[in-house]
Amino acid sequence: MHVLVTGAGGMVGRKLVARLAAEPALFGTEVEKLTLVDVVEPPVPPSLQNMATALTLDLAAEGEADRIISGRPDLVFHLAAIVSGEAETDFDKGYAINLDGGRSLFDAIRREGIREPYCPRLIFASSIAVFGRPFPEKIGDEFFTTPLTSYGTQKAICELLLSDYTRKGIFDGIGLRLPTVCIRPGRPNKAASGFFSNIMREPLNGEEAILPVEDNVRHWFASPRATVGFFAHAARMDTSVLGARRALTMPGLSALVAEQIEALRRIAGEKTVALIRREPDPDIRKIVAGWPRDFDARRASELGFEAERSFEDIIRIHIEDELEGASA
Amino acid sequence: MHVLVTGAGGMVGRKLVARLAAEPALFGTEVEKLTLVDVVEPPVPPSLQNMATALTLDLAAEGEADRIISGRPDLVFHLAAIVSGEAETDFDKGYAINLDGGRSLFDAIRREGIREPYCPRLIFASSIAVFGRPFPEKIGDEFFTTPLTSYGTQKAICELLLSDYTRKGIFDGIGLRLPTVCIRPGRPNKAASGFFSNIMREPLNGEEAILPVEDNVRHWFASPRATVGFFAHAARMDTSVLGARRALTMPGLSALVAEQIEALRRIAGEKTVALIRREPDPDIRKIVAGWPRDFDARRASELGFEAERSFEDIIRIHIEDELEGASA
Repeated sequence: MHVLVTGAGGMVGRKLVARLAAEPALFGTEVEKLTLVDVVEPPVPPSLQNMATALTLDLAAEGEADRIISGRPDLVFHLAAIVSGEAETDFDKGYAINLDGGRSLFDAIRREGIREPYCPRLIFASSIAVFGRPFPEKIGDEFFTTPLTSYGTQKAICELLLSDYTRKGIFDGIGLRLPTVCIRPGRPNKAASGFFSNIMREPLNGEEAILPVEDNVRHWFASPRATVGFFAHAARMDTSVLGARRALTMPGLSALVAEQIEALRRIAGEKTVALIRREPDPDIRKIVAGWPRDFDARRASELGFEAERSFEDIIRIHIEDELEGASA
Repeated sequence: MHVLVTGAGGMVGRKLVARLAAEPALFGTEVEKLTLVDVVEPPVPPSLQNMATALTLDLAAEGEADRIISGRPDLVFHLAAIVSGEAETDFDKGYAINLDGGRSLFDAIRREGIREPYCPRLIFASSIAVFGRPFPEKIGDEFFTTPLTSYGTQKAICELLLSDYTRKGIFDGIGLRLPTVCIRPGRPNKAASGFFSNIMREPLNGEEAILPVEDNVRHWFASPRATVGFFAHAARMDTSVLGARRALTMPGLSALVAEQIEALRRIAGEKTVALIRREPDPDIRKIVAGWPRDFDARRASELGFEAERSFEDIIRIHIEDELEGASA
């Protein structure tokens, strides 16, 4: 099977490709050819060197989507996007990458299928940013999408295109509304959501981290491992049961910051927790207050998608996958 | 005030412009300049000849949206669209006119505002086609948009753009999800929904009409007069109460075909009703079965939008507005 991954250089993209190399059966496939695409050269796992092509390109640029689709991948993971903060400050770039980039890819698949019958499976990384406050206590599967950011708007639009193109038989699309990925590996970044990971990851490394909000803030999480698992499940699942509704809110764990901290205490002890420094930031508090806190992701759960059920599991996965089984 | 109407040559566009000429106060404005745009030359009401410009152009064509926005209209009615059936059979044309046409207009407003501060009110004709079955008994204001046609997809995408551009201060947008307009004046057309009007209009003209579905089919209606009233109300309302949720399901009348016929009987008598010929059409039945039947359009009602409350009112309005007060 020929697999294409856009945004293959990003955090989720790299983990997805690594997992595809290590456990192709999890994706219900054997990888015979792999095309990795990103705006910076994406890394290729050593075991896939002989079958992989890494391309540096901008999907929205004239002809580029046609170029990668001409290879007729059977399975497409479309992860390429600029993040929420950048899409908000750079309006043109957000729409160019997050909307036009996706549409270019979708239209290239359509053109290829007109040339010669073709209908790949396409799995799109959407986001809970398609929702905007005010919310019900738990956001259900039929709640409307009223994004409060350009990023969320662009994701919601791609979901609509995905369903329509699927209905027309252009591809077999599934949109995955991902929870906030936690614990993100790597160094702290400037995303407003970064602290949810920072206050776990940095103390586990023996370093201080800043908590800019109150302990009673609630949010919606999945580990990087569960996130890659969503893509794998979407690749192998029977899509005939989806009907016309192709965007799925992924399951996740709704947890308070206090519960995150309590889980950290149980796993790594008081000394580790003491590295969390409370430094309230009214700007971050205000941003976070607009975010979803809890979902009833019944449909995806019934379809077999799975996330963690406790924050301790999320911490353990981080220790296993990022710290080779040992915390500081 | 400078008013721009796109799709000014269509049925709703012509009625809107006529009403704007006759009752500008209803729109909360005095018209000083009027720009009418359509792909075929739109008619200009005699009383507005000296202040109106009629333009024949395609909004999605390079530079055309900039050309009409350079006149800096204060109030924009964006009605231009190709209809559901055509958008479904001509995929490229549907996306070009219904999505790219709207986005071109929105982006032209943005560019004009970057050149020199500018924030017109923009009222967009959306549709209940943004919803797709299965539905609840009554579709509420927070039900999700899962269109089952390319037309509905394009309308739902424009709603998302409208909210995001409004949030960014580019314009002050309102999207009106219009009920099926009934009784449509003119000759029968080939739209699958045409019979809802045909079975009223043709008998009132002393002519036979075909009913292709059962009497227990339920649908959602507003008269042409109420429809123009929605646009007028949206033009004059206080939009600060809308917040970020800019797409409104308009109020309407949920009626059975049997109730339509009973209303016709009460107003025009048995002889008129006898002109309705039952000729079941499985294709039309199947299409209609996928359409919304009833809404709880509470939010728009609370905001002051009004539709008819009985089908007799809808028939009387048709007789007053189209038949100069007399039926055959």
